[in-house]
Amino acid sequence: MIKVKGFKFAGISCGIKKSNKKDLGLILSEKKCLSHAVFTKNKVIAAPLEIGKEVLRFNEIYGVIANSGNANACTGKKGIIATNKILNSLSKRTGYKTYNFFPSSTGIIGVQLDYEKVNNGISKLVKSLKQESFKDFAESIRTTDKFIKFKHKKIKIGKKEGNILAIAKGAGMIHPGMATMLCFLITDLKFNKNTFRNLINNGVNQSFNCISVDGDMSTNDTVLGLSNGMAENKIIDNKSTDLSKVTKEIYRIFYSLAEDIVRDGEGSTKICKVTVKGARDKKTADFIARKVSNSLLFKTALYGSDPNWGRIIAAVGSTQIEYIESTKIDIHIGKIKIVKNGELFGNLKPANKIMKKKSIEITINLNKGKAQAFMLTNDIGHDYIKLNSLYTT
Amino acid sequence: MIKVKGFKFAGISCGIKKSNKKDLGLILSEKKCLSHAVFTKNKVIAAPLEIGKEVLRFNEIYGVIANSGNANACTGKKGIIATNKILNSLSKRTGYKTYNFFPSSTGIIGVQLDYEKVNNGISKLVKSLKQESFKDFAESIRTTDKFIKFKHKKIKIGKKEGNILAIAKGAGMIHPGMATMLCFLITDLKFNKNTFRNLINNGVNQSFNCISVDGDMSTNDTVLGLSNGMAENKIIDNKSTDLSKVTKEIYRIFYSLAEDIVRDGEGSTKICKVTVKGARDKKTADFIARKVSNSLLFKTALYGSDPNWGRIIAAVGSTQIEYIESTKIDIHIGKIKIVKNGELFGNLKPANKIMKKKSIEITINLNKGKAQAFMLTNDIGHDYIKLNSLYTT
Repeated sequence: MIKVKGFKFAGISCGIKKSNKKDLGLILSEKKCLSHAVFTKNKVIAAPLEIGKEVLRFNEIYGVIANSGNANACTGKKGIIATNKILNSLSKRTGYKTYNFFPSSTGIIGVQLDYEKVNNGISKLVKSLKQESFKDFAESIRTTDKFIKFKHKKIKIGKKEGNILAIAKGAGMIHPGMATMLCFLITDLKFNKNTFRNLINNGVNQSFNCISVDGDMSTNDTVLGLSNGMAENKIIDNKSTDLSKVTKEIYRIFYSLAEDIVRDGEGSTKICKVTVKGARDKKTADFIARKVSNSLLFKTALYGSDPNWGRIIAAVGSTQIEYIESTKIDIHIGKIKIVKNGELFGNLKPANKIMKKKSIEITINLNKGKAQAFMLTNDIGHDYIKLNSLYTT
Repeated sequence: MIKVKGFKFAGISCGIKKSNKKDLGLILSEKKCLSHAVFTKNKVIAAPLEIGKEVLRFNEIYGVIANSGNANACTGKKGIIATNKILNSLSKRTGYKTYNFFPSSTGIIGVQLDYEKVNNGISKLVKSLKQESFKDFAESIRTTDKFIKFKHKKIKIGKKEGNILAIAKGAGMIHPGMATMLCFLITDLKFNKNTFRNLINNGVNQSFNCISVDGDMSTNDTVLGLSNGMAENKIIDNKSTDLSKVTKEIYRIFYSLAEDIVRDGEGSTKICKVTVKGARDKKTADFIARKVSNSLLFKTALYGSDPNWGRIIAAVGSTQIEYIESTKIDIHIGKIKIVKNGELFGNLKPANKIMKKKSIEITINLNKGKAQAFMLTNDIGHDYIKLNSLYTT
């Protein structure tokens, strides 16, 4: 049974979504939490994020209230009022302060959130809090996800055993920005504040910041870490001998959730890791990996299981990065070299087979330096078009 | 009958394409031409472009030789040799120097160009040169274009009458980078060198540089202007009273060819002009217009005739431009205001009707300054996926 000491979870239906689907969730910790969050870089951010950013400054977070079915984005002053009304209602029913909770919303953009529906559900929500109900919470933040997403790991620090549990929802943007990647990492391990902050930031950079579903960026994306320290371990700081172990586990959890999100991308049939090697610096390596991963021509080739190196090399060149020389570029699909010095190498038959797999690795070597970066991407096919064009606002 | 004084055209089949489709074209001027070209900014460029850039330095251009069916890109040294062999053969059969011709190729990437097929066709090509055969030339540079693209305008400068004829091919990238936007502007008007250069550069910036078919950039894109001055008009320079008239016509020709290219984009069912107003500067206006036009979510909404302003506003915000305030943004679809201060304005029914049209105008006002920019884009639907995924390299 997965449990994280001192944390309870709930997920219920309050009527935002149709047909009694779960759409309201709560996480509550017995003790106050160390918290750190990473947000969307989109300049247009949702009302709960505006409030949430302020809330986190107080650093006395006890939990999260989240709804799906409505992102409360592009809703102006009314949107801010709605989130505040919800936090007030939650405060009354729990005895905590309004700023003890981080608010989160995901779903349709530009439609006012019916906060009365939420508030009518809060009593039931609070009553159904249980240590083992994290799957209900995971269910309550789903939008177009085909499956709920969570990862758990027990970790021993000295003689104390702690838990890390992360719950996420997908990034595909269906319907008018039925958007948003959300991830809540909950742990009973005790951390130094800066160490925890760095772990979250670096983990996000190597996972959620390296995924491309459709190249669009949502107004609500949030990764929030909460640590209540109730495992009573020796505090994990930058000098801890256990830091590397914990770092590895948090990265692994974030990475596999990121993979799940890409795999579950709208209409996606396969996942592909694009690695760019031999770059002069990390920044350009990252930029090239992103350009290839977001290329519509590359994504449709992926869908068609086509080892279309012409499109890959054209996408690399389209970055206009000065030091790129097409006659130096090598490309591997899986372990098969298909391009050497910018030209076709050998025959494409073995690569053709690999392209038919559900999980593909493509490596582009610029042969110009030692820096590298990767992106996780997926294919774009008919189901993506169907999901994203048939909806009418 | 459209003619441009001193220019002859030809287009024949030499066997690069299947089933005797025209795939080799020639433009030849009696007198040497003033020339200026704008090229792809892709760092990976094709062999003919590498040679063409050198050729243009001599500034004694008499014409263009172009083939379709093979882009001669990512073909290494062999590709350079192939283009040189073709120029040699053309030189022998016409008496001109090899560097009197600008070479151009479009079609599949990464496959060696069979220059012997081209050279076997050159006698026939030269023999079929005629003043009125520009449509044969237009035909010979087609790849996936559904229709040939040309615009012509007679212009009177003083008592002399001159002609501007521009021939283009489309930008959709089907097959492994069956790429490339090509445009050749041919005129018998006499220009000052710098004036001609500026006209081409500025014209391209306001037309071909403002189109987005799939956000990808080809290895062969070229716009070449040739002026042989045989209309014997008073030279057009920066002080000419006729300059504004000529400028307007060249821009109009480029713009309507750009529209044709977008309209003919792979699997496209409609065309949309995205204008960004009220920006602080031209550069950011342009960046935002590009971001919206390339957004896959926006393009699929366009396909579904969905006035999905949430996706538009999310794409605007994703540029991360500092001065954007979502609560200042207004959006019009046609003349209907659908968003005011970042929120839904009125109802979407009239906008729904406009979205069903073949040609749509969307205006985004940031209300932050006086700069503006536009992009022409198209929708992405099932035919795009079909065309781009079913091909196997």
